[in-house]
Amino acid sequence: MGKQEVSGFQTQHEFADRVSNLPESFIREILKVTTRPEIISFAGGLPNPELFPVDEIAAATLAVLQESGQDILQYTVTEGYLPLKEKISKRYRKKKGLEIPPENILILSGSQQGLDLVGKAFLNPRELILLEKPTFIGALQSFAVFEPSIEEVSITTAGPDMEEVRRALDKKPKLFYCVPNFQNPTGATYSSTRRNEIAQRISGTNTVIVEDDPYGDISFTDEEMKSFWELAPEQTILLGSFSKIISPGLRTGWLAAPSHLIRKLVVLKQAADTHTNHLSQRAIDRYLSDNNIDLHISKIKSAYKAQRDCMVDAIRADFPSEVKVDIPNGGMFLWATLPENVDAYEVFESAIKEKVAFVPAKTFYANLDINNTIRLNFSNCSEEQIREGIRRLGFTLKKFV
Amino acid sequence: MGKQEVSGFQTQHEFADRVSNLPESFIREILKVTTRPEIISFAGGLPNPELFPVDEIAAATLAVLQESGQDILQYTVTEGYLPLKEKISKRYRKKKGLEIPPENILILSGSQQGLDLVGKAFLNPRELILLEKPTFIGALQSFAVFEPSIEEVSITTAGPDMEEVRRALDKKPKLFYCVPNFQNPTGATYSSTRRNEIAQRISGTNTVIVEDDPYGDISFTDEEMKSFWELAPEQTILLGSFSKIISPGLRTGWLAAPSHLIRKLVVLKQAADTHTNHLSQRAIDRYLSDNNIDLHISKIKSAYKAQRDCMVDAIRADFPSEVKVDIPNGGMFLWATLPENVDAYEVFESAIKEKVAFVPAKTFYANLDINNTIRLNFSNCSEEQIREGIRRLGFTLKKFV
Repeated sequence: MGKQEVSGFQTQHEFADRVSNLPESFIREILKVTTRPEIISFAGGLPNPELFPVDEIAAATLAVLQESGQDILQYTVTEGYLPLKEKISKRYRKKKGLEIPPENILILSGSQQGLDLVGKAFLNPRELILLEKPTFIGALQSFAVFEPSIEEVSITTAGPDMEEVRRALDKKPKLFYCVPNFQNPTGATYSSTRRNEIAQRISGTNTVIVEDDPYGDISFTDEEMKSFWELAPEQTILLGSFSKIISPGLRTGWLAAPSHLIRKLVVLKQAADTHTNHLSQRAIDRYLSDNNIDLHISKIKSAYKAQRDCMVDAIRADFPSEVKVDIPNGGMFLWATLPENVDAYEVFESAIKEKVAFVPAKTFYANLDINNTIRLNFSNCSEEQIREGIRRLGFTLKKFV
Repeated sequence: MGKQEVSGFQTQHEFADRVSNLPESFIREILKVTTRPEIISFAGGLPNPELFPVDEIAAATLAVLQESGQDILQYTVTEGYLPLKEKISKRYRKKKGLEIPPENILILSGSQQGLDLVGKAFLNPRELILLEKPTFIGALQSFAVFEPSIEEVSITTAGPDMEEVRRALDKKPKLFYCVPNFQNPTGATYSSTRRNEIAQRISGTNTVIVEDDPYGDISFTDEEMKSFWELAPEQTILLGSFSKIISPGLRTGWLAAPSHLIRKLVVLKQAADTHTNHLSQRAIDRYLSDNNIDLHISKIKSAYKAQRDCMVDAIRADFPSEVKVDIPNGGMFLWATLPENVDAYEVFESAIKEKVAFVPAKTFYANLDINNTIRLNFSNCSEEQIREGIRRLGFTLKKFV
């Protein structure tokens, strides 16, 4: 029953137009290759599991279940657990001086869900969205469902090319999706000047900034950059996540939206999955009560900084000088640019034979027009693996440049 | 920052067309009234929390975190935890003789998510979807986002009005959404005859049946009805949930789809929220390994049956004879039809003054054309509350008939 393929039906059940050209994640395909144990993989985007607070989360989970199990296993409100939202609000105030009232926060099943909700709420087919070039693959996938027109602005180490931003904003995009802190995939951080100019240009227009900030806490410097929530308060939807600072497996993130936008997003969240996992909301809330999250984050930061430094040193020793590497001040990724005539996908196929993996260019570009860049994840390998993997990759690269 | 309302922006940031007429859940508004402790509420759709296996879930959660905490707190695959899918597959085989291979199952963040994914995958704006009349409010909300045309078929105690079904299927709907077992809100179950005729008529057409089955396990009889998965295997997407048999707060459900449809749904799930909460997937899997779920379900069934019987007895004693009540053979709801000239919403407002609540008609109808029906939930009240609440409601109803 239902096992054999009935070929006649394959074309009969027509999918909706919005999914006909959906980009499948190339990273997903890559990850299938890279799960082979002999391969050193810089391809994933995974936090280092050795830094997960397993015992503390277990203790918090057990405590809340013992104290209020019946309540926690029951349905709850779509908006999210209020004490958790209060803690998020308080942390924004303390860390960044941001005033984000709890009622402007919606708990999500991971911040990826925020992209789906924002796309649903704002994008009619063929309406313009501004994306970074390159951008986060998950954003490409989420927004593609809503069939927008896409305009890209090139990302350099100090943020987007401002000439391109000015031209793109003249076209009055509905949304500007950006990752201003330690961007995925480039590691770039927007300078203050660029943040200010973007906010100023967008202010009073129809454009909504979708500021995705999963890596903001993982900073290797003391510099605290301003959020668009502060610079363009009525036009910014801010996405945050516990994935990089506590655990991605618990799928708990949030969005903050101005009062005139939050209600529709709550209704859309309700239609999408009723509410976020109640146990994880309560466990994270308890974890935050019983532990010093800033101390935990500082451990992650120093570990990732050491991993980044190790990778940078190895690259200096083993990569051919023709490869340009951007060194990030935070986050989980290094970004390398190969000579223009080198196809990163060909390098990938060759590198797999040397038992090292990374993500080649095309995945990250809406228009698939750049082939010579690669993303290297440094958060999920030991220093020994980093040195050996970069040696193998350097060996491979030398065949291409 | 971001706290004051800037009225000029309220209209400037235009939402997408798809959300302009989104139905807000009236139940949500009702629940705000009914959280007042003095009110006896038959309005919610909540399982009885006293039947949640709190200790067993706590033990399972702790066990999996202690054994594989780093793995569980990490990202995982979109498709869902394979051993859990194998258990779901095995249970379908054992209970209903259904062959649903694990690779045809996608774990969801609650089965509500299945409605969002199915709507996304199949519905272009203005394409036809067939809904039950009345139908599940969450389905109305989810599908509304995709701006379909809606055709309704009236539900009686033996299932949909077949004349209406025949006429509606002639219009070649893209989807037929149904809850054939102990439907929400009516408690109705489709007869075998109607299931067979629907499957036969749909077979070989373009229509996909979306069979939502959250209550199928909560049966008060021994009769096991056939799933459309068996009757129309290439054209059925089956939704299932742990919400009514283990816990809704853990937001873990699934869909099963034929091989030619499952892949797009997986890609859409990935874009929507990456994957379902990993800890809850693993905890439920462990719970199912360490406990006898059928024994647990039999406890739920006998408790709900006793609650249903109590409500039926109370209604016989206290409701005016003009009110027609449908007695369900499973699930969580009783359905009552008032005389045609009585507006259930007016009864609701009067009942609240008597400190008893229920959900009045309009919420459940896509076309809002019926006013004289009410839904009574019996799973989340003690027998004492049921008797007293029905007494109050009978008193109120007598003023209207």
